[in-house]
Amino acid sequence: MNYNNVLYIVGKTVRIVSCLMLMPLACAIYYHESLMPFLLTILLSFLLGMFMTSVFDSSEGTIMHREGYAIVSLSWLVASVLGALPFVLSGSIPNFIDAFFETVSGLTTTGASIVDDVEALPKSILFWRSLTHWIGGMGILVFITAIAFRSPDRTINILKAEMPGHSVDKLVPKTKKTAVSLYKMYVVLTAVEIAFLLAGGMPLFDSVLHAFGTAGTGGFGIKADSIASYSPYLQWVITIFMFLFGLNFNLYYLILLKNFKPVIKSNELKWALIFAFSATAIITLNIMPMYHNFSEALRLSAFQVSSIMTTTGYATCDFNLWPQLSKAILLLLMFCGCCMGSTAGGLKVSRVVVLGQVIKNQFIQALSPRSIRSVRLNGRLMDEAYVAKTTGYFVMYMAIICISFLLLSFESFDFETNFTAAVSCMNNVGPGFGAVGPAASFSGYSDFSTLVLSFTMLLGRLEIYPLILAITPISKVN
Amino acid sequence: MNYNNVLYIVGKTVRIVSCLMLMPLACAIYYHESLMPFLLTILLSFLLGMFMTSVFDSSEGTIMHREGYAIVSLSWLVASVLGALPFVLSGSIPNFIDAFFETVSGLTTTGASIVDDVEALPKSILFWRSLTHWIGGMGILVFITAIAFRSPDRTINILKAEMPGHSVDKLVPKTKKTAVSLYKMYVVLTAVEIAFLLAGGMPLFDSVLHAFGTAGTGGFGIKADSIASYSPYLQWVITIFMFLFGLNFNLYYLILLKNFKPVIKSNELKWALIFAFSATAIITLNIMPMYHNFSEALRLSAFQVSSIMTTTGYATCDFNLWPQLSKAILLLLMFCGCCMGSTAGGLKVSRVVVLGQVIKNQFIQALSPRSIRSVRLNGRLMDEAYVAKTTGYFVMYMAIICISFLLLSFESFDFETNFTAAVSCMNNVGPGFGAVGPAASFSGYSDFSTLVLSFTMLLGRLEIYPLILAITPISKVN
Repeated sequence: MNYNNVLYIVGKTVRIVSCLMLMPLACAIYYHESLMPFLLTILLSFLLGMFMTSVFDSSEGTIMHREGYAIVSLSWLVASVLGALPFVLSGSIPNFIDAFFETVSGLTTTGASIVDDVEALPKSILFWRSLTHWIGGMGILVFITAIAFRSPDRTINILKAEMPGHSVDKLVPKTKKTAVSLYKMYVVLTAVEIAFLLAGGMPLFDSVLHAFGTAGTGGFGIKADSIASYSPYLQWVITIFMFLFGLNFNLYYLILLKNFKPVIKSNELKWALIFAFSATAIITLNIMPMYHNFSEALRLSAFQVSSIMTTTGYATCDFNLWPQLSKAILLLLMFCGCCMGSTAGGLKVSRVVVLGQVIKNQFIQALSPRSIRSVRLNGRLMDEAYVAKTTGYFVMYMAIICISFLLLSFESFDFETNFTAAVSCMNNVGPGFGAVGPAASFSGYSDFSTLVLSFTMLLGRLEIYPLILAITPISKVN
Repeated sequence: MNYNNVLYIVGKTVRIVSCLMLMPLACAIYYHESLMPFLLTILLSFLLGMFMTSVFDSSEGTIMHREGYAIVSLSWLVASVLGALPFVLSGSIPNFIDAFFETVSGLTTTGASIVDDVEALPKSILFWRSLTHWIGGMGILVFITAIAFRSPDRTINILKAEMPGHSVDKLVPKTKKTAVSLYKMYVVLTAVEIAFLLAGGMPLFDSVLHAFGTAGTGGFGIKADSIASYSPYLQWVITIFMFLFGLNFNLYYLILLKNFKPVIKSNELKWALIFAFSATAIITLNIMPMYHNFSEALRLSAFQVSSIMTTTGYATCDFNLWPQLSKAILLLLMFCGCCMGSTAGGLKVSRVVVLGQVIKNQFIQALSPRSIRSVRLNGRLMDEAYVAKTTGYFVMYMAIICISFLLLSFESFDFETNFTAAVSCMNNVGPGFGAVGPAASFSGYSDFSTLVLSFTMLLGRLEIYPLILAITPISKVN
């Protein structure tokens, strides 16, 4: 491994973090809040970043798979550690491990919070907290690639490590161009959402922060009841934008190019719509008796389905109190997630589609063992290696949920709480059921469990490989 | 599909069921209980069986895959329906659907019971209930093959459909010889257990019934507290025999042939021992504070681990009251199950071993995409098709647990109850946690859920394929 290369790029990440914190700093100035937490963190990360980028020299060699994984893991860890400092320094979250959890939860766009009284936080801290969603949603390294590299084709393995979904359908041949065009769409879509929220009478500060949370499919709210106290219009706007950010960004790119054929052929899009609409319909009928009328039930159902399926995690009611059937459907949607190449987490619909075809092929082969069956995704034939990788990913993914759940079992919480906490963090959703439901927080967990959940979130966001490969001794894998 | 062949062999199953009921009939005579329930069922199934075997002609053609699946599914369904009649006719379980659940639970060696007061049942009914475990453990069709076929090599696809695990390591080339030698070992091991139980002062009736339940890794008890009221010696005997019946019978065959090399090389055996001992150790430490001394904690821990891992389901305490960590370990053991080619359910240790290697290979391939990695089981190289089949099975298996859990969610039971009920039935364990814990029964479920769980048990026992393939229209799979 070329450590120079790795540490040089991690140094760039550190510098970027220090630049990004200028935004909450400006917010603190505007609202006359304490500047110290951000000033100190900016200074520290600027010095550290400059030190790293000047000491370590980036040779011009291509970055290999292993280095890509190491860069991504280290960058996310370092960004989470530095990002946690303002929470600690401002006294908002005095315990560093809790602050680390909150930052990881932000960057991985999980939205699980350790904060019991979110309305008591300073506005600049709230701004930083939501900004982590927006940065983490598209990816820290994608951001760096978009703005910082001059000879970007050597960075292909970094992007591959951070955005495994995109490697299937590459947008444009050059990685820098890919990163830039992704961020362009991301910025435009976020701005459009802010405009819609402002039009509905939401204050600017709230609009920007909720748009960050929606765009990254993160879910940190700025009110104790998440989105419940906003008007039905605003709830519907967020419902629709959560879903839009859960779709594959390649589709928007194709639509911009007026190339509609692959959009229509996309069975990932088709199934995402089928899952979303059927879940909304069933839950609406199931919760009808609990609410005043059909339109309220439909709005609550659609919001929660969109929020959970895109793994955002906003809530407009305490769905932990819903009937078992609705909760079971939401749990399955947590596993499913939304589209590949979006900011959403979970297994992703395209993997679910592939797994569905694997099941079908199993039966066919049981009857005619010599038949060879194919798997198709978005009109393309997937080779055996891709299918094996998908089923292999599913096995790993279930294994990590099991391990995470097992480690959480040292807590005295009930089965529902521990299990859904592991599932929710692995899928970067945010809330679970029971004591980690939408009306509660993760503050009841011990430091040990908080760390377990932090790593579960990172494993989920980075799709397992980078973090584990970066800590595996080389000799073990060769 | 050759329906003649299928219905002829199902007719044989019906006749066998009528013969098997002579045993509880004898029991009823001995204990002066009502003979009517068994006499009526024997008469009915004898006439139906004779009718089927005389009307349908078994041509001498080989039985194809599809026919094998159809024979196995139909035989198990018909045996469950007929086997339920004595429960209904005796008034022990008046509701036919409940009685069907109880019989399916017996034949699939699950041991989940609908009966709230098991000590109130007549002895002949208890005998029949436990006998279903013993028959179902090795397989109904294996039993028929062992005693009934004269030209048995055409039945290979029936055995393959009923015992998927055995097809990997075929004992002897001829199916009839395989079936006979399996049953010989099964009978001998059961007899040895009865002797050990009698030596510990357990009455003959109890010994025979508990040996049936242990041998089939079933778990129907004849006391309200399952095995808790028996002496520590008897509990240890059952602990050990449950585990012995959870090991691959091929190993015993190899030991009889004094061929020890493959036994030592078996990594399925190695991992089964590692799982069992480490789970016992952790749980012992975890539950120590709840009990009087180390030896009691060890005995309770070892018993419950052996019972859950082999998917038997006997209990010597209410493990639903144990700390979350112990419960989490037991839940994972439910998924794991014990060895292929035994009477145990679950995923099976050998599949878990293969899945573990799949995970390892995923990481290696992520670093060097062109490397080709192998999977080894019991010293043998497994081909890609076998590995794909194993991961595919895992995907199907999780999908069925999800569907079963979703259908159970119409009930008002809590998440823990519904989820563990689905998991326990799919893995043929018996008890779950919450309202279906070892101290409770499944009687709280509605008829609809009872049927869902019955089919889940059958899918788990027959390893999914037969039941689903038998009901899939031919056009769909060709």
